[in-house]
Amino acid sequence: MTTKAYGAHAADKPLQPIDIERRAPGPQDVQIDIAYCGVCHSDLHTVRSEWGGTLFPCVPGHEIVGHVSAVGSAVTGFKAGDTVGVGCMVDSCQHCASCAEGLEQYCENGFTGTYNGATKDAPGHTLGGYSQRIVVDEKFVLKIRHPEAQLAAVAPLLCAGITTWSPLRHWKVGPGSKVGVVGIGGLGHMGVKLAHALGAQVVAFTSSENKRQAALDLGADEVVVSRNEGEMKAHAGSFDLILNTVAASHSLDAYTALLKRDGTLVLVGVPEHPHPTPSIANLIFKRRAIAGSLIGGIVETQEMLDFCADKGIVADIEMIPMQQIDEAYDRMVKSDVKYRFVIDNATLANQACG
Amino acid sequence: MTTKAYGAHAADKPLQPIDIERRAPGPQDVQIDIAYCGVCHSDLHTVRSEWGGTLFPCVPGHEIVGHVSAVGSAVTGFKAGDTVGVGCMVDSCQHCASCAEGLEQYCENGFTGTYNGATKDAPGHTLGGYSQRIVVDEKFVLKIRHPEAQLAAVAPLLCAGITTWSPLRHWKVGPGSKVGVVGIGGLGHMGVKLAHALGAQVVAFTSSENKRQAALDLGADEVVVSRNEGEMKAHAGSFDLILNTVAASHSLDAYTALLKRDGTLVLVGVPEHPHPTPSIANLIFKRRAIAGSLIGGIVETQEMLDFCADKGIVADIEMIPMQQIDEAYDRMVKSDVKYRFVIDNATLANQACG
Repeated sequence: MTTKAYGAHAADKPLQPIDIERRAPGPQDVQIDIAYCGVCHSDLHTVRSEWGGTLFPCVPGHEIVGHVSAVGSAVTGFKAGDTVGVGCMVDSCQHCASCAEGLEQYCENGFTGTYNGATKDAPGHTLGGYSQRIVVDEKFVLKIRHPEAQLAAVAPLLCAGITTWSPLRHWKVGPGSKVGVVGIGGLGHMGVKLAHALGAQVVAFTSSENKRQAALDLGADEVVVSRNEGEMKAHAGSFDLILNTVAASHSLDAYTALLKRDGTLVLVGVPEHPHPTPSIANLIFKRRAIAGSLIGGIVETQEMLDFCADKGIVADIEMIPMQQIDEAYDRMVKSDVKYRFVIDNATLANQACG
Repeated sequence: MTTKAYGAHAADKPLQPIDIERRAPGPQDVQIDIAYCGVCHSDLHTVRSEWGGTLFPCVPGHEIVGHVSAVGSAVTGFKAGDTVGVGCMVDSCQHCASCAEGLEQYCENGFTGTYNGATKDAPGHTLGGYSQRIVVDEKFVLKIRHPEAQLAAVAPLLCAGITTWSPLRHWKVGPGSKVGVVGIGGLGHMGVKLAHALGAQVVAFTSSENKRQAALDLGADEVVVSRNEGEMKAHAGSFDLILNTVAASHSLDAYTALLKRDGTLVLVGVPEHPHPTPSIANLIFKRRAIAGSLIGGIVETQEMLDFCADKGIVADIEMIPMQQIDEAYDRMVKSDVKYRFVIDNATLANQACG
């Protein structure tokens, strides 16, 4: 099935219209007409091969929402017309210890990414949501219960949402918890909304004084400008969990010092250039930890989507036509977006194919 | 009460005989005639002021065992003749959250170290176990149930033992756990013994091929020479907990890569020179953590001593007279001891006072 998409043919080439093939739905497959797709930093890193290993042509996009247009004969959970989502994964081994626990993101045999992952389908690697249509095993399709009018703003929940939700839940954040969220961008703005909705006291950390009011509006109880030593010190030894969404190289010590005994600093981004080596004394003298967390499993992604539907939580987005993706990337690099670009995939329909 | 001791008058001076004063026991105090005192790396770092902040004269020693020679009027837990121990702490605030939980080592107001801690007693800072006698609040005195013949070898349990026991218990090591112990010295040899006795599968990591048999003898199920990449890789992704007792600067990545999903690398030593900055990807892709842990609280120290008495566990020691402490330090720096020096404090009795 020929499908219009936007992709790059090489790391130094811009995204451009291309035609891709989608497989006909197999027995377990759900075919989705994509309505919207969020724009994640990973899209940019991959399409420009900044992490290496990018397979071309590359069609990014793993914050996918849309409607079911066909289902395979053995599909039980979905029917045509359902509103659904697809996140960062479209497959995993389904038999390792992590898959058995519903933590497919830690699949011992490697999950299949929604783009740039290995597949038997042409061209041999997966192609993502910057496209009109996608075909996915029903195990990796999520139900969306939000009102249709919010659908575009649901898209970022599939990566930015679950990446912050999973550590908040794993480290048992709830009423009585004091949680910090470092960096108020695509991930961080979801971290603030979700931690607040889970009942925690939330402190947002930002490097820019001019994000103070915006962070309060997102649900932060307090905002700390991280360059202000006095503001930082006032919170010494007080956090149960600090969720650090900033992947740019920076000192972690300022944050470990703010953790309580047994508190954890969770990193969700791999820095391009390493962080300075962290103080081990900061860890030892309060039994603190620095941990990492990767997106989230399918069960917890559904849990998060249901929680957000119940609470009326969506991302704050700026909608763009597909054709403005390069400009969006440029602005995203400068953190000039509140807080996530979402592509209106309907804008793919009328383009000339590449 | 004048008491013979061994101490240093300055960072660049050797240890020498000195007379110190011990307070008369107050109502809550236990007076202990010290039989033996273990020799810890911290003693050397402090007496040479390698961490800074050493107060002189400095009398080190915080692995103290001996017999009660007097008790204060309000003491209920001890009587003259009891066999007892004192570890790294002789006081704490007793009212913060950590003290309330029996985790005095994380006292929010700072615990009082057995040496170099603040005290109202002369000379204004605490003086440790390289001495004939010590007077300690009964809350910080431990009961020892080992046979008298093992007493010298019990001394290292008070620091090396509890420093490894506390993280093993906090991270719930037991039957079914796979535990690594990095570094087979004073701390590491106790870590191997205790993890084995707790029922875990234990792998000892050493940099020297010639420690292989010795580590097996301590109770390790397997020994990995950390320079052997093949041996290391065979254990990739398999450990629940790795207890790292090596404070010398080294890459932590080789160990985080050996942890299972949700596994933890626990550091118990502050490096003099920082470790290379650890890989954040190693943490994120398996939700692993790097944590720190500091000695242990009084309740868990008693628990460890009772466990060791029940299981017949003591340290492997080399006994020295007080007068050989400088030689012992030199050998300790070269890791030339199996595995802990213990001072026979009776050798203090006949010396001329300084």
